[in-house]
Amino acid sequence: MFFRQAPFGGGFSLFAGLSDCLLFLRNFRLTEDDVAYLQSVLPQDTDPAFFSFLTGLDCSAVSIASVPEGTAMFGKVPLLEVSGPLAVVQLLETSLLCMVNYASLVCSNAARFRLAAGPAVKLMELGLRRAQGPDGGLSASRYTHIGGFDLTSNVLAGRLFGVPVAGTMAHSYITSFSSLEETLMPCSGGDPVDLVSLAVGWLRRVRQLLGAESGGIRQGEFAAFLSYGIAYPQNFLPVIDSYSVQCSGLPCFCAVALALCELGYRPVGIRLDSGDLCRQSVEVRGVFRRCSDHFNFPEFQSLIIVGSNGVSEGSLAELRQKENEINVMGVGTHLVTCSRQPSLGCVYKLVEISGQPRMKLTEDPKKSTLPGRKAVYRLMDSDGRPFLDLLCLSGEPEPKKGVSLRCHPLGQEPPLCVTPAQVMNLQQKVFINGQIICPLSSLGESRARAQTSINALHPQYTRLEQPDKYPVAISEKLHQLFCDLKTGSVSPVLLPC
Amino acid sequence: MFFRQAPFGGGFSLFAGLSDCLLFLRNFRLTEDDVAYLQSVLPQDTDPAFFSFLTGLDCSAVSIASVPEGTAMFGKVPLLEVSGPLAVVQLLETSLLCMVNYASLVCSNAARFRLAAGPAVKLMELGLRRAQGPDGGLSASRYTHIGGFDLTSNVLAGRLFGVPVAGTMAHSYITSFSSLEETLMPCSGGDPVDLVSLAVGWLRRVRQLLGAESGGIRQGEFAAFLSYGIAYPQNFLPVIDSYSVQCSGLPCFCAVALALCELGYRPVGIRLDSGDLCRQSVEVRGVFRRCSDHFNFPEFQSLIIVGSNGVSEGSLAELRQKENEINVMGVGTHLVTCSRQPSLGCVYKLVEISGQPRMKLTEDPKKSTLPGRKAVYRLMDSDGRPFLDLLCLSGEPEPKKGVSLRCHPLGQEPPLCVTPAQVMNLQQKVFINGQIICPLSSLGESRARAQTSINALHPQYTRLEQPDKYPVAISEKLHQLFCDLKTGSVSPVLLPC
Repeated sequence: MFFRQAPFGGGFSLFAGLSDCLLFLRNFRLTEDDVAYLQSVLPQDTDPAFFSFLTGLDCSAVSIASVPEGTAMFGKVPLLEVSGPLAVVQLLETSLLCMVNYASLVCSNAARFRLAAGPAVKLMELGLRRAQGPDGGLSASRYTHIGGFDLTSNVLAGRLFGVPVAGTMAHSYITSFSSLEETLMPCSGGDPVDLVSLAVGWLRRVRQLLGAESGGIRQGEFAAFLSYGIAYPQNFLPVIDSYSVQCSGLPCFCAVALALCELGYRPVGIRLDSGDLCRQSVEVRGVFRRCSDHFNFPEFQSLIIVGSNGVSEGSLAELRQKENEINVMGVGTHLVTCSRQPSLGCVYKLVEISGQPRMKLTEDPKKSTLPGRKAVYRLMDSDGRPFLDLLCLSGEPEPKKGVSLRCHPLGQEPPLCVTPAQVMNLQQKVFINGQIICPLSSLGESRARAQTSINALHPQYTRLEQPDKYPVAISEKLHQLFCDLKTGSVSPVLLPC
Repeated sequence: MFFRQAPFGGGFSLFAGLSDCLLFLRNFRLTEDDVAYLQSVLPQDTDPAFFSFLTGLDCSAVSIASVPEGTAMFGKVPLLEVSGPLAVVQLLETSLLCMVNYASLVCSNAARFRLAAGPAVKLMELGLRRAQGPDGGLSASRYTHIGGFDLTSNVLAGRLFGVPVAGTMAHSYITSFSSLEETLMPCSGGDPVDLVSLAVGWLRRVRQLLGAESGGIRQGEFAAFLSYGIAYPQNFLPVIDSYSVQCSGLPCFCAVALALCELGYRPVGIRLDSGDLCRQSVEVRGVFRRCSDHFNFPEFQSLIIVGSNGVSEGSLAELRQKENEINVMGVGTHLVTCSRQPSLGCVYKLVEISGQPRMKLTEDPKKSTLPGRKAVYRLMDSDGRPFLDLLCLSGEPEPKKGVSLRCHPLGQEPPLCVTPAQVMNLQQKVFINGQIICPLSSLGESRARAQTSINALHPQYTRLEQPDKYPVAISEKLHQLFCDLKTGSVSPVLLPC
């Protein structure tokens, strides 16, 4: 299994989905009901022995070599090598592609969003509502975390995979309030306090400070903030753009937050979900500073600003260019749907049968495949930077550090002589005769590997737009085999007709 | 729940996902483990009563009115109206959006592919490998069938939902063969026949007829076709572009198919998976006709040609323009990922609380909502063509056929007077206090409704590019309420500060 071209016009793809594949393979078999259904839809003249074969089918004769989950990979380099009885491994094709394609795509998308945003901003995934159903959303939450996101709003992803969860407040929470009466509940912890009166007093002082007119204040918004502040005085982070940030949301937030501060609580911050996020964040930060200075609450210096609303890779890149005060970005649709390129074209091709190499050699040369079972090496220079991935036939001796070797870069002439300072064998056996033989990477391990793997690359290969093409080469032996098969000189004699 | 704009720059979206929503709601509750997990991630100072509330939570106080699954819908017209305790219906937001957004999107995409292809071509969905995981793929197979596809390669979708299944042959099946020895198995049914010798003889005659050189014939491809023909003599439909259509795939197909015909079987056809599908299909058809005439096998007149390979809406539209002989198109990636617009922006907004209308009124007027619970009517002219969707406040009298009414078209002035010849009430109660109160639409019913609903529309609204905007209007009363809330004249008094 390999992809031909890295997604999103970029230089690499992360590899993800391996754990899902292995767990699937370990349990793969058809029930009697499955076989009965197949019998009902396959041609009447199907050999009955085929259905007996299907009934006993499992992956006990299947083995897999794979690169580790989270590795940055390049076009044409094998991700998985699946071996076993042809009929079985052929049946697995679509399932394995399905589990690797989207996982790798969305993981790579997240890595690009992270590269675009830089390391400082926290990134929160909140795309469930736009995913391909609940399970598509769950995959998105899991694999965007591996790709570099910090948080998800998908609580089930937190529970199942340990992704840190974080939420935001719905506009409907704000618009469900209309007056203050609804907030007269006792404040939990300590002596009950009339937070409403306190906040009304603060609202007057904030309005004076900011020169905000009382006519703009939405009573319902103020009530909603108060109610939320009473419920979560240590986690107060409302969305402030349900009506108007300047005229209502921001003054109301400041009033309630100041009342909470006065009572010894630490409000957390605000969320902006519309308009020019950069500009507004700067204005909001300015108001926080003025409140902090004027009312002498240093807690207001460390309030956070969360941005959301159709955030794309481009908006994150813009964040690094434009003045802004955003601490956390929430990203949904463009992340989980990978709108810039909503599919990764991983393919699954036959390379050997009964010890004989095979290749697909169509009239479209881009669809040709490289024959034979392969070993995959990442060659590094003396700085530890990868400079070439080398595909050899399995059985060839491993390249040695410090020893020069001749190879054939894909898509370019002439052959190349290279001397690696270090050599990393990317492929490892992970599944032998139906058994998972190595511990599955934890989410955290895959996430760390993704960052390490990307960071090891020279920035010319991870540049988001028009990156240099990372070289992938094949060994002399593999090149010779490819040429022999292409010209037909290895092929058996022609038909006697 | 509604969308603001139809997807893909088109005029409508089909509504789908209702059955999933209702089944989800009927069973919605949190387990003790769920609640324990939430307790572990929510702030320490969360009121313990909240967790008791969550433990007892279900949808027994939730009700839903909905348009029927498969209906063609327009921007701002409610798809679902969910009523119940605010905390409960708010918790459902993301799950319901997730179930409706992708289902409706991919269903609409399929409907557009069908409109582009015209009614004659059979359309087969084969996108599982590029979907957002196995369940995303399953949703795609199910909802593209509702949208107008005929077949799916997803066997589980056949089993679970009754979508007709059809398969194709993998290139690896072809390239797994290298010589004829592997095909010496007995032919099932009747006296065993040496199909190999028979086909070798036919191959010689076909080559003479077509002037094809023997050097181009791939022995493995011929062997693969023979093996498949022996296993499925009545379902012979190989992929013929593994090496070269002209030099090997097509002559080999004709030879094996002619041998099968000679033995009284009916071969089915071929698949093309690369290159210019239209041009090749014409050439292949020509060869079929020559074989039919020359060898006198009329079965060759009715062979079918299947096309696949990155088929998009555009390629289907092209099919209708260009000369071609394709009978079935297989569509994968662009269909299931909805690459032209990979998300539908359905939203879920608060419109009423405790009998009081609510709306979101932000600084971005496009994000404003229409307040109040609504009834939805489709008004039709005397030809039975819908010409306007009318949103009224629920409780308003139903519009009457033949009676003029005044309404306010959204996004345009001035008010309009219209007289419907027929009125269809689009919304029906489907879920009351936790119970599904009407039979769920079967796949076939939803599929038929989708076609009826699209066909009823004037073509100016279903045109794929730059369709006319179908008019949606609000009643006088709803318009008045909207204006009152916008100016704040319905809102309670301002804060005394």
